[in-house]
Amino acid sequence: MLTGHHRNIHFHASPLTPAIRAGLLKQSGLTIWLTGLSASGKSTIAVALEQALIRKPYTKNAYRLDGDNIRFGLNKDLGFTPKDREENIRRIAEVAKLFADSCTIAITSFISPYRADRDMARALHEAPRPGGESGVPFVEVWIDVPVEVAEQRDPKGLYKKAREGKIPEFTGISAPYEEPLKPEVHIKSAETSVEEAVKIIIKYLEEKGYLSTPPAVDDEE
Amino acid sequence: MLTGHHRNIHFHASPLTPAIRAGLLKQSGLTIWLTGLSASGKSTIAVALEQALIRKPYTKNAYRLDGDNIRFGLNKDLGFTPKDREENIRRIAEVAKLFADSCTIAITSFISPYRADRDMARALHEAPRPGGESGVPFVEVWIDVPVEVAEQRDPKGLYKKAREGKIPEFTGISAPYEEPLKPEVHIKSAETSVEEAVKIIIKYLEEKGYLSTPPAVDDEE
Repeated sequence: MLTGHHRNIHFHASPLTPAIRAGLLKQSGLTIWLTGLSASGKSTIAVALEQALIRKPYTKNAYRLDGDNIRFGLNKDLGFTPKDREENIRRIAEVAKLFADSCTIAITSFISPYRADRDMARALHEAPRPGGESGVPFVEVWIDVPVEVAEQRDPKGLYKKAREGKIPEFTGISAPYEEPLKPEVHIKSAETSVEEAVKIIIKYLEEKGYLSTPPAVDDEE
Repeated sequence: MLTGHHRNIHFHASPLTPAIRAGLLKQSGLTIWLTGLSASGKSTIAVALEQALIRKPYTKNAYRLDGDNIRFGLNKDLGFTPKDREENIRRIAEVAKLFADSCTIAITSFISPYRADRDMARALHEAPRPGGESGVPFVEVWIDVPVEVAEQRDPKGLYKKAREGKIPEFTGISAPYEEPLKPEVHIKSAETSVEEAVKIIIKYLEEKGYLSTPPAVDDEE
């Protein structure tokens, strides 16, 4: 037996455009791309940012993509050769774009040391969508810390191992970090608390209108 | 200047567990995995299902992963060798699981002809999450159509090309489709309208409680 609910399911011949989707879900999607050295504070800031966006007063769906859920899942077939690193970032960018397209706020937290890779991620997001609608916003957030400070923090002992030559091509020690030239947000994490960093990012999002409720699109008539 | 909003951002030391996330977003995540022959109606049903779930009375975030947004994006580096086909499904399963973990309803629409691949996708979803919480539901939906009917429909002319030998290893013609042994939902699409198919799937989801609003978890005190 079908219940009343089932009889009220709405079937639409017209496609679910990004604007209709955003209006129904009361949320627009975007990607917040954190970049910075190991031990710069990216993950800590990403965790706090996700919490702040999901809780009141925002109650937006936000979801982190980070080493824990990507390197051991989607990208577990990839190593650390230059080719694999590039493919790692490419896939992360593609998945973040899917989340943003679904109206979720994707928060990525990866060193992503190369400008070309970050620019590729941006271009993917900003390209028009298949239906011709404009792409999704890409917010590059540079978590900037002097390498000396990161090396002193070294919570996982990675810098020590890199200095001992046990980790080849370690960003900041034996491999370059290409600083963002025009990040949307620049946070100097040695002199900014996690809470302040989150406030700075959210302030940017609010100013751009990314956290406002999208208007309902009336296609029911 | 920070506005009042910023001063009210909630910072939490405790992690955002799946239950807290679901309570805040008023939605649980799961993956609806459609499987069936080319021209079985998977994509049409997926489109209608996504619309029905996003619109009233459900207003749940649902998102389709299909050939259009995966084969030309995340998996554009993959071809159609057996190894690439397996990797194609593996990545789709990993991404669907991320969406489900984020509290979105992922709807995948791929032929996925091999039992081993679908079982792998199921195992990925049902495995406990890193924090020890139980995995996410995996709903296998077999869109079952006689190959003769699919071949007669042949909207893209693929069966014709396969018969002419222009497409090697075409599922149902020159490559096997391994029928699901215990799908959660079995839809015979030759004798079921798209609307009825969507109603059948939603009825199953409702009976399992997957569409009910998860309780708020009070961790604010």
